[in-house]
Amino acid sequence: MTGRDGGADLHPIGNSPVVVLVRPQLADNIGACARAMANGGLFHLRLVAPRDGWPQEKAWRNSSGADRILDAATVHDTVADAVADLHRVFATCPRPRHIVKPVLTARGAAAEMRLIAERGLSIGLLFGPERAGLDNDDMAQADALVRYPLNPAFMSLNLAQAVMVMAYEWWTAADTTPGRTLMTNETKVATKGQLENFLAHLTDQLDACGFLRNLPKRPGMVRNIRHFFQRGEVTEQELRTLHGIVTELAIGRRQRGRLEEE
Amino acid sequence: MTGRDGGADLHPIGNSPVVVLVRPQLADNIGACARAMANGGLFHLRLVAPRDGWPQEKAWRNSSGADRILDAATVHDTVADAVADLHRVFATCPRPRHIVKPVLTARGAAAEMRLIAERGLSIGLLFGPERAGLDNDDMAQADALVRYPLNPAFMSLNLAQAVMVMAYEWWTAADTTPGRTLMTNETKVATKGQLENFLAHLTDQLDACGFLRNLPKRPGMVRNIRHFFQRGEVTEQELRTLHGIVTELAIGRRQRGRLEEE
Repeated sequence: MTGRDGGADLHPIGNSPVVVLVRPQLADNIGACARAMANGGLFHLRLVAPRDGWPQEKAWRNSSGADRILDAATVHDTVADAVADLHRVFATCPRPRHIVKPVLTARGAAAEMRLIAERGLSIGLLFGPERAGLDNDDMAQADALVRYPLNPAFMSLNLAQAVMVMAYEWWTAADTTPGRTLMTNETKVATKGQLENFLAHLTDQLDACGFLRNLPKRPGMVRNIRHFFQRGEVTEQELRTLHGIVTELAIGRRQRGRLEEE
Repeated sequence: MTGRDGGADLHPIGNSPVVVLVRPQLADNIGACARAMANGGLFHLRLVAPRDGWPQEKAWRNSSGADRILDAATVHDTVADAVADLHRVFATCPRPRHIVKPVLTARGAAAEMRLIAERGLSIGLLFGPERAGLDNDDMAQADALVRYPLNPAFMSLNLAQAVMVMAYEWWTAADTTPGRTLMTNETKVATKGQLENFLAHLTDQLDACGFLRNLPKRPGMVRNIRHFFQRGEVTEQELRTLHGIVTELAIGRRQRGRLEEE
């Protein structure tokens, strides 16, 4: 703890996984990692042998207010020390070789971590240094490896981006937001009856102005107009606006008609 | 096109969404966005009124080799111009207000974008400037808004992180990697029969050394040992090692016994 007290209230959540940055090089990146952690609801940070020592002012400058995570970060000499009090450890690792280990996607790992956390067990998430990644001894400390499904032709993933993806999956694993919704704010989605009222109004005016005068084609034309207005969800407010548009256009047409008659 | 030819071969994929950065401020961020795009298989970049002009050397320096995306980026005066040839536009937007619009999660948007791309239609993904985000006129250019499910107590999301999440979801939407697998490399998962052979070997040696001499407790002890070895998947190579360990420990014990007898 460095005793600072700035930064956003991050609403820490109890048993979230501990992010362990192993031999991180740049304090900028440590700050960016803290910011990504806060975005995804990961609040516990441990640093194993940070190259430039700790604390580093740059980390706080680059964390966009995730100060509390940095304030509470602990420093450890070894991975073994950093994970000694944890129950389950996952290691992110782009291309593991010649080892026998469970390998999970980020999404698979997030689902497992949620189940583990529900049991009251504590979890560690290891991230390797910027260039080299985790070495074989680091990986041997983990129960399972996490490999993100990403473009194999361009695997150069920034450290904070790697933390972001995992933090995002951790948050999303407990999120129930529907994949698609219609934001209506002050108004609501119109009922079919309200839509029908508008379509009747529109059709009346189109009959009046002669747009539908071709009687053999009229049913198909009306149906096509109906198909268009049925395509998306229309709100009550939008229907009021559409009624207004039709009324005003029709008045304008009648007035012009009257002027031409004069 | 600036005519550079460095950078990684990104294996461009045909009909991937076009990332449109609206009034981006920092060239560093534009480079980081290109890197995140390459990670997730997004290859088409357009810039609307970049604050410091274009091209900017800093963007290439910060893209970790995603040069081709930057080389091919186009610059536009307005959002309308940048999306004029596209069929469907999604706008990322943290907190839209007072508008009526479909709102999707990143995952929901990725699923929809895959379906749209399969139909041969082209897609644009709008990201706003670093601080302000997209304004109301920008959002009115979009068919739908994308809002990430992330910690509402800490919404400060870096521009490149926002691109990363969407690029990751785009890639993942077409990925079929199992959520959990066991990487076995040169060896394979042992069959139950192979495991049984080892357990028989172990039990024989434990009988011989007297570890199981308490006959009433013996069945339960054997069962507990069996439960432990059944818990995870064991590989053929690991079983060979375990056979060797048991054999060697038993030999050592016999030899020590012989020494003690002498």
